Amino acid sequence: MKPLRTAIIGFGKIAEDQHVPAIAGNPRFELAASVSRQGNGPAPNFTSAEDLLAALPDLDAAAITTPPGPRYEIAKLCIARGLHLLLEKPPCATLGEVEELRRLAEAAGTTLFTTWHAQHNGGVAAAARLLAGQRIATMKIIWHEDVHKWHPGQQWVFDAGGFGVFDPGINAFSVATAILPAPLFVREGTLFYPANAHTPIAAELAFTSPAADGPLSASLDWRKTDGEEWTIEIETADGATLKLLDGGARLLLNGDEVAASGIGEYPDLYARFAQLIDCRESLVDVEPLRLVADSLLVGKRETVEAVTV
Amino acid sequence: MKPLRTAIIGFGKIAEDQHVPAIAGNPRFELAASVSRQGNGPAPNFTSAEDLLAALPDLDAAAITTPPGPRYEIAKLCIARGLHLLLEKPPCATLGEVEELRRLAEAAGTTLFTTWHAQHNGGVAAAARLLAGQRIATMKIIWHEDVHKWHPGQQWVFDAGGFGVFDPGINAFSVATAILPAPLFVREGTLFYPANAHTPIAAELAFTSPAADGPLSASLDWRKTDGEEWTIEIETADGATLKLLDGGARLLLNGDEVAASGIGEYPDLYARFAQLIDCRESLVDVEPLRLVADSLLVGKRETVEAVTV
Repeated sequence: MKPLRTAIIGFGKIAEDQHVPAIAGNPRFELAASVSRQGNGPAPNFTSAEDLLAALPDLDAAAITTPPGPRYEIAKLCIARGLHLLLEKPPCATLGEVEELRRLAEAAGTTLFTTWHAQHNGGVAAAARLLAGQRIATMKIIWHEDVHKWHPGQQWVFDAGGFGVFDPGINAFSVATAILPAPLFVREGTLFYPANAHTPIAAELAFTSPAADGPLSASLDWRKTDGEEWTIEIETADGATLKLLDGGARLLLNGDEVAASGIGEYPDLYARFAQLIDCRESLVDVEPLRLVADSLLVGKRETVEAVTV
Repeated sequence: MKPLRTAIIGFGKIAEDQHVPAIAGNPRFELAASVSRQGNGPAPNFTSAEDLLAALPDLDAAAITTPPGPRYEIAKLCIARGLHLLLEKPPCATLGEVEELRRLAEAAGTTLFTTWHAQHNGGVAAAARLLAGQRIATMKIIWHEDVHKWHPGQQWVFDAGGFGVFDPGINAFSVATAILPAPLFVREGTLFYPANAHTPIAAELAFTSPAADGPLSASLDWRKTDGEEWTIEIETADGATLKLLDGGARLLLNGDEVAASGIGEYPDLYARFAQLIDCRESLVDVEPLRLVADSLLVGKRETVEAVTV
């Protein structure tokens, strides 16, 4: 089978570290070109999606790895050209844009894949299987890290539309929605905004779910220089304890490690992309982004000290 | 045909002023009971949805007119009992809850109608017909009023989940999405938060739309003691000017009044509810609520002076 000629649009760190090796490791894909404003991606490199599409009429697919702001306009151009699309997380700047892309891809008969890479970690599918049909007693999400370590110089994360602590937190939401046997709803919460920021640096949230009887919570905090962790801990009504560690990479069941399965986060993501294209299906999952939006709809706001990264 | 035995759950001002007369004026409905925490609605009155459902096993439908916070739980009970549901705006506290109600109603085979009363104003349907298939040159939403006049004593509008100026502003969004020939996306904006509030008192927003070539904007402001107005002004690429006044009640085309049509806001809303029940259909429109959520996702935040209403 001829590999799918695929472009990476928005060549940056995540493209270089994850998308390039995942494409190289999957015979169904062939990296055909890249786009970056600086023109520094794998050749042939273009500085705009328009130039790419004009130069390469035989593209089959694209991965859009730009920041979320410009994704909608780029995706629209690509869908109009019949390309299958993989969107890095979060898929667009707004929920409205994602819905419109869903409609456009459906009308054009192309595959639209809104990815949440954390869902493809080794422990996530196993956790979902273990929780299927279970009632949940409690869930605790702890997503603590140091914004200075992980986003040095990226003050834009605190600009309007920059997501703030929801940039990592949305990964937790994507894992939680993938493993829980019913939807999650944000019930209440507090959002902590640095005095000079348009997005929160921390959030404490309480959820409900038709599958849960007890408290469901998330603590997202970008101010932790010690004790970084990315953990989701769940107790079932049957008394079992599931602990997803390292963002979903490791799973403990009642304290015992469950062997990780799968081929790795991004390789698994591209395998799924190929599968969706083969089945002429789309996978448009807005749930994690909707949880962020719902947090903003119901959250209290507190101002905390200014931040510079 | 036997009228649909209908309860009003959350009997307050909007129920008294609008729902009771609209039900009384439509032979397809019969007001069977009411629920209010104070027990002061039309008899028989109950103080909880649970009591209502236990006492009246022959109900056909309910209008839920409580604040949005508790709607999801009440709606879930009603759907489980097979009731057709009309939800006042905004349908729920979060987008996640609305999606789950959509799923539950579909599974139960009941009608779910998420209403936006402003869409049923006299000028709205005519404006939608005039704009069908047109390209839009500009749109300006001006939604200016005095929170002290319209919400005296209701400090909760500034609490978390209270919507702030989006409480009236969501009506503008509901009209705009009903009349424009393509979706609206929030591009950017500024949200003005009183120092003591969790929700904005004003918002200046810029939109884009696949149907539009020029600027689309909304000015929502609850600080206007003079010059109240609820206006949407649209210029088409063909040079026509549409002006919806008084929240959609009046329509001017190129300055000339277009005779209002329709039977009035809430009577029209109940006529549509009957139609949906007859066709065994639901109408779940989250677009206006999604525009609020998207405004919060991309908006800049500015702090303004504290407010007490």
